[in-house]
Amino acid sequence: MVQTVIPKATAKRLPLYYRYLNFLYNAGKKKVSSTELSEVVKVDSATIRRDFSYFGALGKRGYGYDVETLLNFFKKTLNQDHLTNVALVGVGNLGHALLNYNFQQTNNIRISAAFDVNPEIAGTIQSGVPVYAMDDMVNQLKIQQIDIVILTVPAEDAQAVSEQLIQAGIKGIMNFTPMRISLPANVRVQNVDLANELQTLIYFLDHYSKKDKLHHLQSS
Amino acid sequence: MVQTVIPKATAKRLPLYYRYLNFLYNAGKKKVSSTELSEVVKVDSATIRRDFSYFGALGKRGYGYDVETLLNFFKKTLNQDHLTNVALVGVGNLGHALLNYNFQQTNNIRISAAFDVNPEIAGTIQSGVPVYAMDDMVNQLKIQQIDIVILTVPAEDAQAVSEQLIQAGIKGIMNFTPMRISLPANVRVQNVDLANELQTLIYFLDHYSKKDKLHHLQSS
Repeated sequence: MVQTVIPKATAKRLPLYYRYLNFLYNAGKKKVSSTELSEVVKVDSATIRRDFSYFGALGKRGYGYDVETLLNFFKKTLNQDHLTNVALVGVGNLGHALLNYNFQQTNNIRISAAFDVNPEIAGTIQSGVPVYAMDDMVNQLKIQQIDIVILTVPAEDAQAVSEQLIQAGIKGIMNFTPMRISLPANVRVQNVDLANELQTLIYFLDHYSKKDKLHHLQSS
Repeated sequence: MVQTVIPKATAKRLPLYYRYLNFLYNAGKKKVSSTELSEVVKVDSATIRRDFSYFGALGKRGYGYDVETLLNFFKKTLNQDHLTNVALVGVGNLGHALLNYNFQQTNNIRISAAFDVNPEIAGTIQSGVPVYAMDDMVNQLKIQQIDIVILTVPAEDAQAVSEQLIQAGIKGIMNFTPMRISLPANVRVQNVDLANELQTLIYFLDHYSKKDKLHHLQSS
């Protein structure tokens, strides 16, 4: 169990390290240096060493990291040793795509319930996931003890649906709508704003293309 | 035209500011303080003031910002005064959802061409966007002078397809695959790793829930 508060930027890189350590492990690799890891994950090696340093002595200088030890450490830290069930609210185009998205390919996460206003799909199973009516949402989330919701409702419904989610005791929302939601401080929101991401890419291309190679590091 | 190199974190917040300034403007609001803006965009007001300070004198202390001036400034900075055409490669579930995604609701971006290996959809129009065969990709991207691609191919094809994109002169890739791509330094990649985002949310809930309210700020 980690006791220190690690920076958010570091936390966001942990699943990436975990995934690539898995690849290396499956390829039979026993040791990895921060330089080698840097090449595959596209994060500079000083950042990797600093990130790892938050978790104490994970490797020895000049010796590299033991792949299996590191993998097991991240598996525990990221709770990959148990399956996390999440729910999805709003089975439109994006919601449907996410029901089909293979979160288990890289992470031990499963969408185990979905909710939608459309009476034609409520009560059906979509891509292996049972879809419930919105009226059943609060109740089902409580019964199924789901803490985390992927929100793919229309922008104008984001706030109202989120308030119902709070009633259901939800602790985390992955918000795919373009709206910023107002929530109590104990609920965490991860905004994934696709138009914003694309706009940011365009901004960087317009303003820093070519002149600024030093700033070329991948964003995530 | 901005001459200073602004931090990446600031650049990522600009489209958000722009969107909410649009809302405020359409609601008839003339002035906005950093505190008011903070409440709607869920970014603390000190960060907003610092972000704005990179662009010179956008407002006066204790007076607030003029909504229209600010809006026009961001419109120019973000190139929202012209339409940006992008292409999408890989019309699977997620690709299809993105073809239907209304990027124009909030940003002046349009997907104007799509590419897929599946001969059944190559040559058709999907959600208003013409789909071409992969063999035509390099040629079509050049003809249509497209600089930016949304990559939604299977993980195992990410690197090979990206190398073709380089041949086509692409300058920016929004990478939805879970793979980190190796590219020349003059090509910018924006990774949008959905499983990673969800995993990061789970990590924060497991490690910092409730104890750590100070660290509650929305992530994006």
